[in-house]
Amino acid sequence: MKNIMKKQKRILTSDRPTGKLHLGHYVGSLKNRVELQNEYETFIMSADVQALTDNFDNPQKVRDNVLEVTMDNLAVGLDPNKVTFFIQSQIPEIAELTVYFMNLVTLARLQRNPTVKDEMQQKGFGNEIPVGFLSYPISQAADILFLKADLVPVGNDQSPMIEQTREIARRFNSLYGHVFDEPEGKFGEVARLVGTDGQAKMSKSLNNAIFLADPKDVVEQKVMNMYTDPSRLHFTDPGNVEGNPLFIYLDAFGSKEDQVQINDYKERYQKGKVGDIEVKQYLANILNRFLNPIRKRRAIYEQQPEVVGKILKEGTKKARMEAKKTLLEVKKAMKLDYFK
Amino acid sequence: MKNIMKKQKRILTSDRPTGKLHLGHYVGSLKNRVELQNEYETFIMSADVQALTDNFDNPQKVRDNVLEVTMDNLAVGLDPNKVTFFIQSQIPEIAELTVYFMNLVTLARLQRNPTVKDEMQQKGFGNEIPVGFLSYPISQAADILFLKADLVPVGNDQSPMIEQTREIARRFNSLYGHVFDEPEGKFGEVARLVGTDGQAKMSKSLNNAIFLADPKDVVEQKVMNMYTDPSRLHFTDPGNVEGNPLFIYLDAFGSKEDQVQINDYKERYQKGKVGDIEVKQYLANILNRFLNPIRKRRAIYEQQPEVVGKILKEGTKKARMEAKKTLLEVKKAMKLDYFK
Repeated sequence: MKNIMKKQKRILTSDRPTGKLHLGHYVGSLKNRVELQNEYETFIMSADVQALTDNFDNPQKVRDNVLEVTMDNLAVGLDPNKVTFFIQSQIPEIAELTVYFMNLVTLARLQRNPTVKDEMQQKGFGNEIPVGFLSYPISQAADILFLKADLVPVGNDQSPMIEQTREIARRFNSLYGHVFDEPEGKFGEVARLVGTDGQAKMSKSLNNAIFLADPKDVVEQKVMNMYTDPSRLHFTDPGNVEGNPLFIYLDAFGSKEDQVQINDYKERYQKGKVGDIEVKQYLANILNRFLNPIRKRRAIYEQQPEVVGKILKEGTKKARMEAKKTLLEVKKAMKLDYFK
Repeated sequence: MKNIMKKQKRILTSDRPTGKLHLGHYVGSLKNRVELQNEYETFIMSADVQALTDNFDNPQKVRDNVLEVTMDNLAVGLDPNKVTFFIQSQIPEIAELTVYFMNLVTLARLQRNPTVKDEMQQKGFGNEIPVGFLSYPISQAADILFLKADLVPVGNDQSPMIEQTREIARRFNSLYGHVFDEPEGKFGEVARLVGTDGQAKMSKSLNNAIFLADPKDVVEQKVMNMYTDPSRLHFTDPGNVEGNPLFIYLDAFGSKEDQVQINDYKERYQKGKVGDIEVKQYLANILNRFLNPIRKRRAIYEQQPEVVGKILKEGTKKARMEAKKTLLEVKKAMKLDYFK
């Protein structure tokens, strides 16, 4: 048994604790995590330090969401006996690594990072970008490398982040001797879920999200207010199924057994033979059926926040042990091992 | 006694462990430290993490010089029973603070820092500047604030560093509640000693330094090879005393009792009535007289490096306790106090 455990590759994924998780997160990442936990040694980090880089003026929000996000993960079926949950800020070794890695990356290199570039443009920062935010690819490398993760599940658009981490590992090794293996991205087409308003991405900040923790009636209401096919004014008008969130959600959350009914709705919708309301009611039922067990598990944890606290505390302790091991090696390599 | 100790203001000074200390350091800083240790609670930091920002490719040099620089400090008369010596890299809390402070400073603000600007120009970095080097004003703020130093002895040219630290303290307090008092610079005309080659500044990298650890014959040789008045070809030529390192050193290291002889030499030098060699021999004697007790103390420590190691270890332990106290407050203020 122990041998099998040792052969398991180690995975790190993380959540930015800035809001509860929603159906978009489920489709894009959580679903995958639930499967991966059986195959890999899984660590899930609550990235509160990273969340603070652009929420430094609202630490209470970050704090509250560390608990919320962990409960979301547990609620979808991540097993605390298999998965290690930990809080980034409680691993000071990540900050130490970040500081050492900062010597190995130039300002120009950061500015070339496509993700940083995008964010700088989106947020209109220009040179008024906080240094912490600018440097987050470096601290991400520290997150991955302190843990010596083998694999990091990411979307294809995040390959620059993995590349930066590999570069830092190589540069460190070439300067100080081999300490880090280069981690690999576990790339996948990250399914992206449209928002309830038809926007390309479900997102809390766009106010178009259905949260895993939303109660039954809220889900019903959100579905009833959903954007569908704007050109369809009466239910007798032929409707568009492609790119219509109604049917995208049905495809994503309907079971095999629902397929006949879903196909029937699609056909009738295109022919103008069914009203939005009927399909919406059907979708709301399917979503609530999907969310029900998640809500039940979440309710159990909500009633015992101390259990979640204990999961985080023990996971953080375990991650910290890994961090200390890595930093011993790092400091030895960098000749910073003064007091034995 | 305890009450008096408590009222003492706390001072932080630091050395970059990149080479042994020389007469320029003595005149500019060490002499002052020896006096301040009786008036203030003095901490002296071996800034190895900072030294690595531009010596990251030579960690052994930094490592070796942590010991050398500490011995230099002890040799000039800093008393390990009064002064706390500690090593920056052994205080992980400094890295943590650095990471949090990075959110409070923009890239533009760093680029406006005159010292960073100068260094970027001098080293020809441009945007190829390592992020660690660019950010050093932030980590300096972390050095000062983790210790809650009241005063930082600096040269007048370093006021931007103090200003940046005060700014960070204010910004932190306004976001998270009061944790830091704003430290003050203890400004002084930092006496700058010319090099043996007549260059404005004595510096190891300019190869124009007389080190505190130089043996007698090396000092003699360095003095004999010194730059004096280049327009004076024969000792019968009238010589220039102003800006002449020979007389600058005599003024700096001669005692009150030497004053009559020094004045006599100055007069005769200006009239072309004394040779360089005679004055140089006189200076070499004065320097060796000054360096002798320093060498003796240094020799004692050199023979027992474990004593120096113990001083550093105990000092680091003490500084670390302060660091832990400060970080507890910081994490509480930032709502990062998860596990009580």
